[in-house]
Order: sequence, then C-alpha cells, then structure tokens
Amino acid sequence: MQSGLFPDDPAETRIEILKATYAALLEHGYADLTIDRIGQHFPKSTSLLYHHYEGKDELLVDFLSYLLEDAEAGLGTESGASADERLLTLFDRIFAEETPESMAFQRAMAEMRAQAATDQEYRRHFTEHDRFFRDRLADVIRDGIEDGTFREVDPEQVATMLHTMLSGAMAEQVTSDLDLSSMRAEAEAYVEARLLAEGR
Amino acid sequence: MQSGLFPDDPAETRIEILKATYAALLEHGYADLTIDRIGQHFPKSTSLLYHHYEGKDELLVDFLSYLLEDAEAGLGTESGASADERLLTLFDRIFAEETPESMAFQRAMAEMRAQAATDQEYRRHFTEHDRFFRDRLADVIRDGIEDGTFREVDPEQVATMLHTMLSGAMAEQVTSDLDLSSMRAEAEAYVEARLLAEGR
Repeated sequence: MQSGLFPDDPAETRIEILKATYAALLEHGYADLTIDRIGQHFPKSTSLLYHHYEGKDELLVDFLSYLLEDAEAGLGTESGASADERLLTLFDRIFAEETPESMAFQRAMAEMRAQAATDQEYRRHFTEHDRFFRDRLADVIRDGIEDGTFREVDPEQVATMLHTMLSGAMAEQVTSDLDLSSMRAEAEAYVEARLLAEGR
Repeated sequence: MQSGLFPDDPAETRIEILKATYAALLEHGYADLTIDRIGQHFPKSTSLLYHHYEGKDELLVDFLSYLLEDAEAGLGTESGASADERLLTLFDRIFAEETPESMAFQRAMAEMRAQAATDQEYRRHFTEHDRFFRDRLADVIRDGIEDGTFREVDPEQVATMLHTMLSGAMAEQVTSDLDLSSMRAEAEAYVEARLLAEGR
C-alpha cells in the first residue's frame, strides 16, 4: 500500500499536506506527531497547514480518508483472476516481508486505531474503513460462489471472518513479537476447507 | 474475565492497588489515567502507590501480569468437556453480550495494546500474553487430535489462527461500529470444516 501512495510531485495542496503527514507519521508515530513536525516535511509554510486543518486529529482523519480513496482507486487490477487466486494475492500482500517503512506505518495505524476506542471521529472513520474492506471481501466471495469456485456460503459472514483475521494479524505484527509466519498457511487452509467447492 | 477478577477485600497491598487500577481504568481509560486518579479508588494513602511503582506504565504492566496470573489460575475448570465443546465455550465467552463494564475494560485494553507498538515493556508483556493464550489454544487442539475429535492438523498453526481471529474481534468490538454478530457462527463453521474429524 505504501509505495506509490503519493505522487512524486503533488499538484494539490491537500495531497502535498497528506504526503508530509505520511512522512512525519513514519518518523514520529501517532503519539509524538504535531502539526509543526508535519510542517518539517512540507515544502511550503507551516501556517498553510493550520489554514487547512483545525488540528492534528482533523488532519489525520482526512489522511485516513485518503488511504480509502487510494484503495478504492486501486481496485479491479486483479480482474481475470479467479476468486481463490484473488484471496491468495491478498494474503500475500498482508503477510509479505515487512520493511522498516511498512512496520513504521503499521505501528502508526495501530495507534490511530486505538484512538477509535474513545474518539468518535476516529471511530466513524475506522467503521467506514472496515465496511469498505469487508464489502470488497464479500464481493470476492460472491463472485466465487457465482462461478462455482466456492461453495454456497454466506458471503457477509465469511468476509467478516476474513477481515477480522487479517486486521488482527496486522495489529499483532506490531504489538507482539510472536511469530505469525504460519498464519498465511492457515488462512489458505481455511479457504480450502471452508470455501473451495468439492473437487476443485 | 471481569467479574470476580479481584477479591472483595484484598489482603495484599499489591492486589488492593491493582483493584484500584482496574476501577480507575474503567472510569478514565488508559490515556487519561494518572497515579492520582488510581489513588482516588485506593482506600489507603496515594503516596503508597508511588512507593510501590515508579509510574503509571510500570503499574499497568504489573496490572497486565496480574490478568495473566488470574487467567492461569482459572484454567482447567472445563475439564471433562471435549475439545470442540471447549472451543465453543471460549467463543461464547468472547462473543458474549457486552456490558458497559466489559466495553470500558476492552477499550482500555485496546489503548494499552497500542502502546506495545512503541514501548518495549508493553510489547514484552503482550508477547507473553499472546504466547499464553496461543499455547492454551494449541493444548485444546492437541487434546482434540489425541482423542479423535479433530483431524491431524498442525496445532500451533491452528492456534495462531484462532488467537489472531479472537483478538482481532475483541479489538474491532471497541474501535468500529460494524456488526460482528456473525463472527460466532463463522468461527464455529471454521472449527467444523477445518478441525472436526470426518463423521463427527
């Protein structure tokens, strides 16, 4: 998700600000982030940030919306692949080798997600975020049932499980040192045992 | 886990402090917690808290250790039940109707877990926490394979999946408004499709 998240030379001020936010999040994490620290990654005057956003949290909620817009725009690239192949591609992406950049970003996301426990704006955002990814997973399951790859399962119910398992894994990757390397194999075993139609 | 977590009238000062910590966590959450606020729930002098702990985070890491000690002591009560029944009992507990108290406690846990993204002490604790629960889940899977209830799966791998899915669900319950009611059914479907031996 990280590489290519922002254009090299953003034309819009909003995108320029969000790109600076991303760089500052990687450097400082959520808790130590300030508008001034975002300003250090912003090529124009820091006062412009205050002009666009009331404060750090308003800016970050807009940053999270941008991630969703980017995810929406990036969909549909795997068309042509079967439903089970699309799920495995997703697992590959989630359980890919971590880089320092992806770890720093996941840490900041875990901190922001925890804000949703007490802050309504973050909660509203993460609800939208969860709904978006769960709906996309349900679409894949539905396609798989339609073309006979998958059994007749409840697409929403299976999507809820897949989403919860994947977001649990992403959170654990940055909050625990326990080895998650076998998750990829078991996620695949789940798809095979629960979803793949007989004889596939 | 909440009810009966602490004795009504703790004999040890440590337990008395941790009980006050629990009450203060429910009232203020992690971010707004202070030693003085814990002191307001502590029947003795607040200065005693400073005598026992350097600060809020040292106290909270000890609080998390107490939760593990309590969980360890509470194990083995479901002996006699078969492995699949033990898993379903666990699902019942995790997906039980939420109360204001259990929600407040889960919110505080989500905030503390996020600390583990940047704080080594919290991370060390949550690694131990995850290892404990994953090991117990692997024990149940192993028992089930031994007595023929379950297929010949890799117990560690399945336990990793179950644990990640359950901790993901607990986190989502307090950071998103999305409905998780179908998780219970899908967790059961996973056990059935992936674990139950043929003809059970």
